[in-house]
Amino acid sequence: MKIGFVGLGNMGSGMARNLIKAGHTLTVYNRTRARAEEFHKLGARVADSPADAASDVDVFITMLADDHAVESVVFEPGNAIQALSAKRVHLSMSTISVALSRRLAAVHKEKDRYYVAAPVFGRPEAAAAGKLFIIAAGPSTQIEECKPLLDVMGQKTFALGEDASAANVVKLTGNFLITSVIESLAEAFALVRKSGLDPTRFLDVLTESLFAAPIYRTYGPIVASDKFDQTGFKLPLGFKDNRLVLAAAEDASVPMPVASLVHDRFVAAMAQGLANSDWAAIARITYQNAGLHQG
Amino acid sequence: MKIGFVGLGNMGSGMARNLIKAGHTLTVYNRTRARAEEFHKLGARVADSPADAASDVDVFITMLADDHAVESVVFEPGNAIQALSAKRVHLSMSTISVALSRRLAAVHKEKDRYYVAAPVFGRPEAAAAGKLFIIAAGPSTQIEECKPLLDVMGQKTFALGEDASAANVVKLTGNFLITSVIESLAEAFALVRKSGLDPTRFLDVLTESLFAAPIYRTYGPIVASDKFDQTGFKLPLGFKDNRLVLAAAEDASVPMPVASLVHDRFVAAMAQGLANSDWAAIARITYQNAGLHQG
Amino acid sequence: MKIGFVGLGNMGSGMARNLIKAGHTLTVYNRTRARAEEFHKLGARVADSPADAASDVDVFITMLADDHAVESVVFEPGNAIQALSAKRVHLSMSTISVALSRRLAAVHKEKDRYYVAAPVFGRPEAAAAGKLFIIAAGPSTQIEECKPLLDVMGQKTFALGEDASAANVVKLTGNFLITSVIESLAEAFALVRKSGLDPTRFLDVLTESLFAAPIYRTYGPIVASDKFDQTGFKLPLGFKDNRLVLAAAEDASVPMPVASLVHDRFVAAMAQGLANSDWAAIARITYQNAGLHQG
Amino acid sequence: MKIGFVGLGNMGSGMARNLIKAGHTLTVYNRTRARAEEFHKLGARVADSPADAASDVDVFITMLADDHAVESVVFEPGNAIQALSAKRVHLSMSTISVALSRRLAAVHKEKDRYYVAAPVFGRPEAAAAGKLFIIAAGPSTQIEECKPLLDVMGQKTFALGEDASAANVVKLTGNFLITSVIESLAEAFALVRKSGLDPTRFLDVLTESLFAAPIYRTYGPIVASDKFDQTGFKLPLGFKDNRLVLAAAEDASVPMPVASLVHDRFVAAMAQGLANSDWAAIARITYQNAGLHQG
Repeated sequence: MKIGFVGLGNMGSGMARNLIKAGHTLTVYNRTRARAEEFHKLGARVADSPADAASDVDVFITMLADDHAVESVVFEPGNAIQALSAKRVHLSMSTISVALSRRLAAVHKEKDRYYVAAPVFGRPEAAAAGKLFIIAAGPSTQIEECKPLLDVMGQKTFALGEDASAANVVKLTGNFLITSVIESLAEAFALVRKSGLDPTRFLDVLTESLFAAPIYRTYGPIVASDKFDQTGFKLPLGFKDNRLVLAAAEDASVPMPVASLVHDRFVAAMAQGLANSDWAAIARITYQNAGLHQG
Repeated sequence: MKIGFVGLGNMGSGMARNLIKAGHTLTVYNRTRARAEEFHKLGARVADSPADAASDVDVFITMLADDHAVESVVFEPGNAIQALSAKRVHLSMSTISVALSRRLAAVHKEKDRYYVAAPVFGRPEAAAAGKLFIIAAGPSTQIEECKPLLDVMGQKTFALGEDASAANVVKLTGNFLITSVIESLAEAFALVRKSGLDPTRFLDVLTESLFAAPIYRTYGPIVASDKFDQTGFKLPLGFKDNRLVLAAAEDASVPMPVASLVHDRFVAAMAQGLANSDWAAIARITYQNAGLHQG
Repeated sequence: MKIGFVGLGNMGSGMARNLIKAGHTLTVYNRTRARAEEFHKLGARVADSPADAASDVDVFITMLADDHAVESVVFEPGNAIQALSAKRVHLSMSTISVALSRRLAAVHKEKDRYYVAAPVFGRPEAAAAGKLFIIAAGPSTQIEECKPLLDVMGQKTFALGEDASAANVVKLTGNFLITSVIESLAEAFALVRKSGLDPTRFLDVLTESLFAAPIYRTYGPIVASDKFDQTGFKLPLGFKDNRLVLAAAEDASVPMPVASLVHDRFVAAMAQGLANSDWAAIARITYQNAGLHQG
Repeated sequence: MKIGFVGLGNMGSGMARNLIKAGHTLTVYNRTRARAEEFHKLGARVADSPADAASDVDVFITMLADDHAVESVVFEPGNAIQALSAKRVHLSMSTISVALSRRLAAVHKEKDRYYVAAPVFGRPEAAAAGKLFIIAAGPSTQIEECKPLLDVMGQKTFALGEDASAANVVKLTGNFLITSVIESLAEAFALVRKSGLDPTRFLDVLTESLFAAPIYRTYGPIVASDKFDQTGFKLPLGFKDNRLVLAAAEDASVPMPVASLVHDRFVAAMAQGLANSDWAAIARITYQNAGLHQG
């Protein structure tokens, strides 16, 4: 298929690479052009603008940092939504707000394009390995049409029905659950450490019994190490997702005290200068408050 | 082996039954004698007192509701620790405080008995099925000696070294993590429900992707159902464990805000008259605060 | 002085009335024109637009519900900032964001108008009685120039220096402290009530000893009564201010867990249908969680 | 009157001094005898034991650190309650649990002595100056009888009826409100400081407007200074009171999230080695989390 792909960051670059490997024809665009040039060597065409990337493709994929970036690409002058041909699909894979997803669905419908929300779970390693979990929602025919692409990027796709924004609710709520795991592991490890036990041994008990899930196997060792320099997912991006979940919760009138606690952790982490760390570095606040020095 | 078994509640009855089935000779004691009599039919001797149950056995197992119950059994006049022969083992399997576990270890040592802490993860179904996860700590020779019993009661035993109280720290911290899962699922489901999605469908996404662990498969459906009448583990017992983890955290000077939030949930649940519900009913407070009526 | 006054709500109407009584010449504007017409009888001219109200006046006062309303009035086509003559003063008295206050200061400077931020503490009764506390910041000459107006509207004005946004920081932070008083009184009264004591008697002890301050005398009886129908300050407006304080705190990287708790209270109050209650109704959530029925 | 006085710490020494100055005959006891000897010079008799101090007096006053200290004095062998003559009064002025106060009331009644609970608000300066606020409850005739003593020690006494424990509920709940003021001021000052404003100037605005109460005038400057070395009330004693309020709240099934937050602050403060600071040092945790260095 002919694919326009915008956003070649930590996640997007792995995803785009897998699409190329699988034989699809890619036109790529990235704000920092250097990152796009690397894909030229792999056979992709490098576009001059998002609109250029959206021209003459079957599917237009966005994998961008935040709502603002998606809005710029889609709505600004010389924008992608004008360039995209009628009946073609915008596959929106980054984590954006529920509100923007609703707005995108409405605008695409009005302009006779299709909008499929397909945010993903997984860190850059998973993106590179084609092992993402993908949450898709939107018009079923178009989800079906995108299936070969989704299968290349992910290990499993969950289709959640016709209302595209449902995928964003699920993605954001899932991210909330990940942060609650990070926070609660930090508290648990702090107690275990100060009780004289090895948090790694404790983690083994967890992941070989009731907590035998990828999320504990992925974040457990990071939180236990108390080292957050290797950034799979940067702290400010995690903070952004926390803001999005709190916004969705406020719109739906759902108080979420754990999400509010995580918000406070992100704010404190920013105050400690952890903006370049992995988002799991919110654990550092718990450790500091417990009087633990860096592991 | 000859085993004294005290405490035939929801958990203990399944464990004792499995020991009998495996061919061990049991002397059982329960405060409410009727529950003990059932074991008479299975071939167990019914003791008249905890001390009676501790006499002339290789291993003396306690599976009691709280610290107070264990203290009564072990320390009160005509007590079990006197009745237990020298060099024999007290296998303490219920969830007790770190402080009491330390005290028990010291007293047994002084009196030339052995103390092994072996608290368990798992609900009554798991106890009945011999599928518990067991966290053991204490003198390694005695843990080894108890291995055949542990293998009958659990699907896996984690040995954590010579310091018995380490097992209690791990058990309590693990229970804290379970409550954090219940609380965060409640918040997540409230958001999902008020966004017009089915929490069960959302749960499927979780348990087939990053959260594919027994803990989410066990508690997810309970929390999603918003029905807490079937009590695997009664709310006041969960509250007790929360108190124990907060006490251990206070002793170790570790602030645990999620544990404090869960404390507040338990208090609120008691105020709503949920003392006879499963401990997952702390989710009800989240649902009420979000204006959701019972599912 | 010749004054343009925009925003004749619960607070603004009392303030405008006091300015008229003191002999000033007012041109008033209100979105719902009926409220403005009442001031016609008192001798004010009723303007057709915000710009009309800003024309040919010495001081242009805004007392509007939120950032959006102020932005509309000041920046939209046919706007007030164009209509206001050079060297004249915009006295911005409603509670707006720190960010908007900074922006307003910059724009006015650029256009050679003066911007004075002068948000107020006090409920509608205080506004009607000219008993507000006013926090003023901006160019000192213009604050001095506005002094006669401020003295008519308030019992005391605090001048905080040349940086206008400082007044907004102080106002928002003060509002945060008010909500923390409401929340902590709610928790205290819940405990006192369930311990069999009369919260009003308890409140007397407080206000006749360490807590003898207007804030406890004003909000204490409201929170103790558990009746929130008489709205001095509507709950959604209080929620707005909470959002503004959290936004300022996030910008400054200051975690404020009590503000986050209050946020959760507002969300829960909205979920309970309390949008038409006084903002002190956040206390209702504490009472409900404690199992107390409406007093 | 003839008075036995036990507990000559920061608070008790000022109170006892005032009683002597007013012409009362004191027998004093303190665990560390050196502190009692100072009172010998002032004309007091130094007792050898609490029981000795309770013998042959009209009123027996306790001003001790915690429940345990009061229990030792009152109940242990050679105890005060035996030594106190029939129909005489035990005036219990320190901050103890609601549960212990109930137990003391019952035991005194049984033994035909009178029990009056009369905990106080105020720091050591207020105790020395006879400016405490006293919350009294118990048999009205005996409260009346103690009135001359209470008037010497305090500036005002609030009588709350026949149920002695009501005074303890009020005292503990009042202490909770004080900690909520400390915590919320810390958050407010952190925001103000990081916004470039002087917290002292902000505090002036507060205490000259809505927050003009002793509690803000006392704690405001301490919290604003970010210096907690001068200890009017030691942090571990404040922590003890927080525990007592949480225990009373748990007994009454009242969730108090602000009290839980304050609990977490005390735990964190202990982890930072602040055990010898004033209890207002819980503010340090807020400052640290905001990335502020000591003022």
